[in-house]
Amino acid sequence: MNLILLLPDDGIDGSGRVRLRGRRLRHVLDVHRAAVNDELCVGLLGGGIGIGRVLTLTPEVLEMEVRLDRAPPLPLPLTLILALPRPKVLRRVLRTASSMGVKRIVLLNARRVEKSYWQSPYLEPHAMNEQLLLGLEQARDTMLPEILTRQLFKPFVEDELPGIVRNTLPLVAHPTALAECPRHTDRAVTLAVGPEGGFIPYEVDKLAGCGFTPIRCGERILSTETAVTALLARLF
Amino acid sequence: MNLILLLPDDGIDGSGRVRLRGRRLRHVLDVHRAAVNDELCVGLLGGGIGIGRVLTLTPEVLEMEVRLDRAPPLPLPLTLILALPRPKVLRRVLRTASSMGVKRIVLLNARRVEKSYWQSPYLEPHAMNEQLLLGLEQARDTMLPEILTRQLFKPFVEDELPGIVRNTLPLVAHPTALAECPRHTDRAVTLAVGPEGGFIPYEVDKLAGCGFTPIRCGERILSTETAVTALLARLF
Repeated sequence: MNLILLLPDDGIDGSGRVRLRGRRLRHVLDVHRAAVNDELCVGLLGGGIGIGRVLTLTPEVLEMEVRLDRAPPLPLPLTLILALPRPKVLRRVLRTASSMGVKRIVLLNARRVEKSYWQSPYLEPHAMNEQLLLGLEQARDTMLPEILTRQLFKPFVEDELPGIVRNTLPLVAHPTALAECPRHTDRAVTLAVGPEGGFIPYEVDKLAGCGFTPIRCGERILSTETAVTALLARLF
Repeated sequence: MNLILLLPDDGIDGSGRVRLRGRRLRHVLDVHRAAVNDELCVGLLGGGIGIGRVLTLTPEVLEMEVRLDRAPPLPLPLTLILALPRPKVLRRVLRTASSMGVKRIVLLNARRVEKSYWQSPYLEPHAMNEQLLLGLEQARDTMLPEILTRQLFKPFVEDELPGIVRNTLPLVAHPTALAECPRHTDRAVTLAVGPEGGFIPYEVDKLAGCGFTPIRCGERILSTETAVTALLARLF
């Protein structure tokens, strides 16, 4: 937690004071080991970033005087389309993508996505939200990513995807692709990453029909989680 | 498991036949769902990569006829010096670094490394080896990385590190650095990544004295695991 994320209902009052309990209080006590008058990095969810000066710190409550004077870092100009991964991987990918500045993620069905993954409790909004918030706290960001779930591949690709890819560079990660992932692009990107085992040829064809170029990231086959991080680091 | 890793004691005989049981057999049965005459990607630990044609497949044994006719992918020209991370993170970083082609990793003590981490069973050679092998199987590689553990920061930096950095570009990841990580370098690199909370100023100074330039990867603070992947993807 490199930034203490303040939520709208923490009730920052007119004097800029905020009171925290629970997880964030414990983290400040146990990890930051802060003391009165220490200054901690804080940010308001959806808002600015700044400093919180500790006024009171007891096992029951943390009270800070907060000054938010900076904008959060710029979002990545990217939509990430992710074939729904295994639930445990999903958690980590959401946290990682959030920490890297991704602001729109589409979780999509694909042939090689196991049906049971769609029943996972990790897909519930509050569970995904938790990972996204952890990513923001890690990265010192305040802007929550948006997540869309789409359980039907074909209608999504035919009806919604053309609007998403408009004015972007559409790329699909595919280990057997011949082209390498572009480096340090100044364009907005729509990046599709398949399931373990990859998109099937029909799916790659459908994406190609929508303008997607298959690309790879070196000659090694990377796990979903590693591939997402590596591709984002190359692209931007 | 995108490649079935054959070990020297699997006993490839003169006719190029191999018999597998245990984890690899189960994976071929349950995940690959292979059948007789199917061809699977195989590689010999420390050797070549090729095809294994399934001769026999029962719940007790997998017998394949193996032909190894390709070299494994080129290693990354890199030594990764990693302040020992939390045990759970260590496991994933080892697997990931192995899957990305890192061939030399130094696990180093630093001020902000919790002492208890050095007692973790995940640091035992067979436990680390397991993660490295999983990374090779993921990436279709056969060359096992070498791992050194160094529990004393100062003697390592003063006595060993000068030899390691010779003829390489020495970089230390540091979130407050002003310089961005170089992109697509053609040089060999020595990359140091600090603990959560970062190297302390004394440690950064000692590394700088050894020629290391502090670099960052964008303006966000990334977790150890994400930082390692992102930096490798940018560098190579």
